[in-house]
Amino acid sequence: MALCVAGLLSAGGASAPAAAYDQLVEKHTFEMPSLTTVGGKTIKQVRIGWEAYGKLAPNKDNVILVAHYFSGDSHAAGKYKAEDAAPGYWDAIIGPGKPLDTDKYYIISSDTLVNLSVKNPTVVTTGPATVDPDTGKPYGMSFPIVTIRDFVNVQKALLQSLGITRLEAVAGGSMGSFQAIEWSVAYPDMVKRVIAVIPAGEADAWTNGWLDIWASPIRLDPNWNHGDYYGKVEPLAGLTLALRIVTLHAQSPLRIDKAFDRKWAKEDANPLDSLDNRYAVSAALDTAAAARAKVSDANHFLYLVRANELWVAGHGKTLEEGLKQVKAPMLILPAKNDMLLLPDMARQVRDLVQADGGKVEYQEIVGEWGHLDGIVNIAQVGDKIRSFLAK
Amino acid sequence: MALCVAGLLSAGGASAPAAAYDQLVEKHTFEMPSLTTVGGKTIKQVRIGWEAYGKLAPNKDNVILVAHYFSGDSHAAGKYKAEDAAPGYWDAIIGPGKPLDTDKYYIISSDTLVNLSVKNPTVVTTGPATVDPDTGKPYGMSFPIVTIRDFVNVQKALLQSLGITRLEAVAGGSMGSFQAIEWSVAYPDMVKRVIAVIPAGEADAWTNGWLDIWASPIRLDPNWNHGDYYGKVEPLAGLTLALRIVTLHAQSPLRIDKAFDRKWAKEDANPLDSLDNRYAVSAALDTAAAARAKVSDANHFLYLVRANELWVAGHGKTLEEGLKQVKAPMLILPAKNDMLLLPDMARQVRDLVQADGGKVEYQEIVGEWGHLDGIVNIAQVGDKIRSFLAK
Repeated sequence: MALCVAGLLSAGGASAPAAAYDQLVEKHTFEMPSLTTVGGKTIKQVRIGWEAYGKLAPNKDNVILVAHYFSGDSHAAGKYKAEDAAPGYWDAIIGPGKPLDTDKYYIISSDTLVNLSVKNPTVVTTGPATVDPDTGKPYGMSFPIVTIRDFVNVQKALLQSLGITRLEAVAGGSMGSFQAIEWSVAYPDMVKRVIAVIPAGEADAWTNGWLDIWASPIRLDPNWNHGDYYGKVEPLAGLTLALRIVTLHAQSPLRIDKAFDRKWAKEDANPLDSLDNRYAVSAALDTAAAARAKVSDANHFLYLVRANELWVAGHGKTLEEGLKQVKAPMLILPAKNDMLLLPDMARQVRDLVQADGGKVEYQEIVGEWGHLDGIVNIAQVGDKIRSFLAK
Repeated sequence: MALCVAGLLSAGGASAPAAAYDQLVEKHTFEMPSLTTVGGKTIKQVRIGWEAYGKLAPNKDNVILVAHYFSGDSHAAGKYKAEDAAPGYWDAIIGPGKPLDTDKYYIISSDTLVNLSVKNPTVVTTGPATVDPDTGKPYGMSFPIVTIRDFVNVQKALLQSLGITRLEAVAGGSMGSFQAIEWSVAYPDMVKRVIAVIPAGEADAWTNGWLDIWASPIRLDPNWNHGDYYGKVEPLAGLTLALRIVTLHAQSPLRIDKAFDRKWAKEDANPLDSLDNRYAVSAALDTAAAARAKVSDANHFLYLVRANELWVAGHGKTLEEGLKQVKAPMLILPAKNDMLLLPDMARQVRDLVQADGGKVEYQEIVGEWGHLDGIVNIAQVGDKIRSFLAK
């Protein structure tokens, strides 16, 4: 059970298709000398990781960009080594003959700034845990606050470095959908289509209330030390609780109840006898979150939360104003039982874009995984994605 | 805004009706020399507070028992003093001529064991913060784990002390509904009707996952000190975060978004500029939770969470088995937009009782407050309650 939930955090295992993307995947690093953030700060020597599936056409007009979710990274399809336990998280729809067809498209996926899994050797990112070239020490809380638009701007620089000026589509789930939507708002002439899975057009008050709760256990952990913990004991307990909240939030009762029911964590440890005796669900979430915390960084978590809190399409005053910039047709794919980004949030984007004359297709992913249906059950909307790309 | 949410935690202000219960209310204390818990432990000198509205009939056959929710207490109607800011939380349905008609019924409401608001002078409870008569020191973590059935057994002893052997109804919201259901399972011959508002028949894995998350910030706070903090600095930061999670969980996006939108906590403190600059929703939740934490006890919170985790009707192996004991007709009133105890949980109780030949009436409370609609919008189902009691 613990492994099952842990697998979900790295998301992919549960839905591993019979035929994974058939080429071994290589991680590349893109470096830009300087990025000016939306907040007006400068970050030097920005480095992010990226990988690609398929072949770039000679005229570079067959590119689809895939952006990752909150706790994810650029590993969207395939395996690095044949013996890898699972392929990338959207392998079910990326590959030869699949909806994101690698026989036809060149699919690029990149790590974001302040990526959570900074200690994962296959992730390349720049954030508070990165050494500031000016001081020779990790940035910590001196790292500038970054936004979804900043993530997009780094992707744009990456594409520019490859000579790519036009995208057949930008696709992403959850925080990846924010980037996909922001691409079409910020650079409408570069984006032909948007595929927004388990999306939201902005972080509303409800979402922001929860995001701040996600972050709060880190601040409560004395080892956090106002972000100054590099080279010292890290705030693992706070980070683990933060990740536990995210993990449960991203699922739904339908699946969790089936998996755990009212089982105790240990057969001979009745929760009636001691507060230390727990239910299986809590112990499993804890185990999964603790494993995840080991490759994550607490300050990156805080910066990632803030990037999400700041999310409103276009980064202007209102969502309505932002979505007015969208020219590309959108495919919106919420998960029916999502408890994190509710389908209402997807419908809001659909309705606003349609009200402004934009083209929107909409289909709900039906499943028992909650928010995670956007990953686990993505194959369910494969045909919809295929036909959307063919238009 | 902060006050608005704070008011909601003590629940009642927002729905205060024009005509409150018209008599001043007095808090009584019931003491029993000893309670043997479901877990087989003994608690000496158990004291709980209670209050009553209406008049006890000479033959004592007009009694309705009201049980309170997680963060609530026995103050269900009326005011202690004319100048009180708000009446009790269900004043909208308790009073002369109201659905729980004090011209007809004698309505008793009691504080539970391990009540959260142990520092509130109008709450009387027994729990970890209580002085153990055997040691002269607060129990702390040596206090026995208690269950919903234990809450019910204390209420039963209270009624016995008043010579009451039969209840026209037991009513309660949320954790109060657990007590109402447990009454009809444990003592089917004493209970004529059950009114279960925003209810669940058991704490399923999903709910238990969340309950454990609610409790975890307290354990993360170094001042918690494994429950040994009496006479020292108390774990207020952990308790405040715990209460913040509960507060948001008990509401819904519909209301939270209207109240806060994407407003900043301070007009000149842009969240883009510093991680210390927050959104209004988070600051307001924090303020409300901090105020609430001042009258609460962290260990009581942990024990209350455990009582809720242990909740399954009848405290046997399965919910099905427990609900088979129910003889009383049930009125089940979930809140349509509840994000904490989902309407599915209420439907599960309805379906199981009906499948077993029991009588169930069901109506959803429609509103924007989420779980709190069971308090704020209780008047909406007033007529349903009235007609249910008349049958």
